[in-house]
Amino acid sequence: WSWKPKSCLTLIPGDGIGPEISTAVMKIFEAANAPIRWEERNVTAIKGPGGRWMIPPDAKESMDRSKIGLKGPLKTPIAAGHPSMNLLLRKTFDLYANVRPCVSIEGYQTPYTDVNLVTIRENTEGEYSGIEHVIVDGVVQSIKLITEEASRRIAEYAFEYARNNQRASVTAVHKANIMRMSDGLFLRKCREVAETYKDIKFTEMYLDTVCLNMVQDPTQFDVLVMPNLYGDILSDLCAGLIGGLGVTPSGNIGANGVAIFESVHGTAPDIAGMDLANPTALLLSAVMMLRHMGLHDHGNKIQTACFDTIREKKVLTKDLGGNSKCSEFTAEICRRVQDLD
Amino acid sequence: WSWKPKSCLTLIPGDGIGPEISTAVMKIFEAANAPIRWEERNVTAIKGPGGRWMIPPDAKESMDRSKIGLKGPLKTPIAAGHPSMNLLLRKTFDLYANVRPCVSIEGYQTPYTDVNLVTIRENTEGEYSGIEHVIVDGVVQSIKLITEEASRRIAEYAFEYARNNQRASVTAVHKANIMRMSDGLFLRKCREVAETYKDIKFTEMYLDTVCLNMVQDPTQFDVLVMPNLYGDILSDLCAGLIGGLGVTPSGNIGANGVAIFESVHGTAPDIAGMDLANPTALLLSAVMMLRHMGLHDHGNKIQTACFDTIREKKVLTKDLGGNSKCSEFTAEICRRVQDLD
Ligand SMILES: CC(C)[C@H](C(=O)O)[C@@H](O)C(=O)O
Ligand SMILES: CC(C)[C@H](C(=O)O)[C@@H](O)C(=O)O
Repeated sequence: WSWKPKSCLTLIPGDGIGPEISTAVMKIFEAANAPIRWEERNVTAIKGPGGRWMIPPDAKESMDRSKIGLKGPLKTPIAAGHPSMNLLLRKTFDLYANVRPCVSIEGYQTPYTDVNLVTIRENTEGEYSGIEHVIVDGVVQSIKLITEEASRRIAEYAFEYARNNQRASVTAVHKANIMRMSDGLFLRKCREVAETYKDIKFTEMYLDTVCLNMVQDPTQFDVLVMPNLYGDILSDLCAGLIGGLGVTPSGNIGANGVAIFESVHGTAPDIAGMDLANPTALLLSAVMMLRHMGLHDHGNKIQTACFDTIREKKVLTKDLGGNSKCSEFTAEICRRVQDLD
Repeated sequence: WSWKPKSCLTLIPGDGIGPEISTAVMKIFEAANAPIRWEERNVTAIKGPGGRWMIPPDAKESMDRSKIGLKGPLKTPIAAGHPSMNLLLRKTFDLYANVRPCVSIEGYQTPYTDVNLVTIRENTEGEYSGIEHVIVDGVVQSIKLITEEASRRIAEYAFEYARNNQRASVTAVHKANIMRMSDGLFLRKCREVAETYKDIKFTEMYLDTVCLNMVQDPTQFDVLVMPNLYGDILSDLCAGLIGGLGVTPSGNIGANGVAIFESVHGTAPDIAGMDLANPTALLLSAVMMLRHMGLHDHGNKIQTACFDTIREKKVLTKDLGGNSKCSEFTAEICRRVQDLD
């Protein structure tokens, strides 16, 4: 697969502050002359044949055509039996790898500096199988499903990622001392794949040990690969180290170039429509997207402009410690992008 | 159940540095005139009738008599099929609650101050059921088992703990958005029990959100209650916030007063026998034990002496940033304990 410069990308603005931060990203892309056209789609789930929940056909078609989406936050459906839209999207497009680079942002203070790691989460199985039963009254089981195929696939993804992004090591995160068969299988596949990437250092560590070491010294970690639930936990923990979901990008990657990049924060209904939202997470996700497409120069330029703006501390949204509006923060990044030319 | 002043407690010194730090604790107890006699036992697992692993009968009998144990680190068995001794002990005595108070230690610097929370982990079921199957080649399932009874029991424990320890709130930690039936059952029981403890505030939070918030601001948390694996993760994460397993106490609590208090760090074979180990985690676990027995004065005195020693920074073991020996650190605490009389 290779991206064709003329084709459209799918933009899913999402709910709440989604439209505002999407507009911000589009403006910054324009200022950067990114060769991108957008096709906007909504993805409220609908009931398809047989009562199965599915994303609307026009959104599906757009993604099938474009292969690449950028997505704002979606509100969590409250109807009983209604699936999480995020899970439905991962499933529909078989986005098997969730990738979250967590890098300390200069000028945005947290208890940690020099964090520079990437969590790679298996996105399709494990504890998210959705298979549960009542055995007898008051006794419930949930099934965690681990397959050789998905484990090998995510391990390969992690090592490829490490190699392509000049990263030195991959750590497999597991509890194979407890779940000997399932996490054991996952770990075995990681070891096997590691054998074929002699240029990348491989280590393995228990999830509890990773969490303990992470809060004590996150700089010891590089690329981390793990089953679904552990990734859910660790990716949020690591986002916390660098300032939270408002500044952390995320990408969901499938086969053949298919991918959806997204901000993983909420819809913030309390400030929606008030021009107060922080577009950083969506913008940095869009930067990941540009790199995924091979548009490194555009990606680097936008990222530099964004980080420079944060470091300078003059024009910041409220959550970043300033009192500027979303549009002002956006304009400042646009100005800097243009200055970089 | 109530503790009888003349009876012996079971001491399981453990492996590696276990004997040294156990000796340290015994000395400090003596200095504090704690009305305790010890019965030492080893707990290497043996194969019982039918090939089932069990702890040696004399250790079992001692615990059955004393009801209360203090335990150093045990080395992880490497024989195939050999169970973790920690798990075997929890199981043998039905120690259903793992309790870990995480409180910032003045003078011992970490990125956080004012941490003051307690994790309460369900210790008997969940992801630790040990039930796993190969479905077909390359497809494995692990079963997470959640029961109404164990969920209610741990929820009740958490609220009782909060009430008895002047704590204001209990947070149930879960992923009931994903494991709707199993974590859903756990959560429902927490809600039900919360209804009967109107004096304690109850909140619920997703595990990923807890991890994110925890590293951003741990002071927002008080008592946290959760299923087994989540507790494994969070209790280590929280230990990391206050300085690691070397300074974090732990108690495993069963019914009718039965309990084993333990340091959860490793056996540190590299420094075993060299008089370099830090006995703090085992000592603070022993303080939890004294409180469990109603011996609050002795507990408080020892804790004060320990924290004063750390705050003063004059006599510290290497891992705490000093260069004193275990025996010197111990002597300093003994001296302070006696001064407090
Ligand atoms: C929204 C929820 C289903 C999701 C998850 O648990 O995976 C979220 O926490 C995430 O990490 O994307
Ligand atoms: C030793 C291991 C089996 C254990 C666990 O996973 O529960 C440990 O991590 C703990 O927290 O006591």
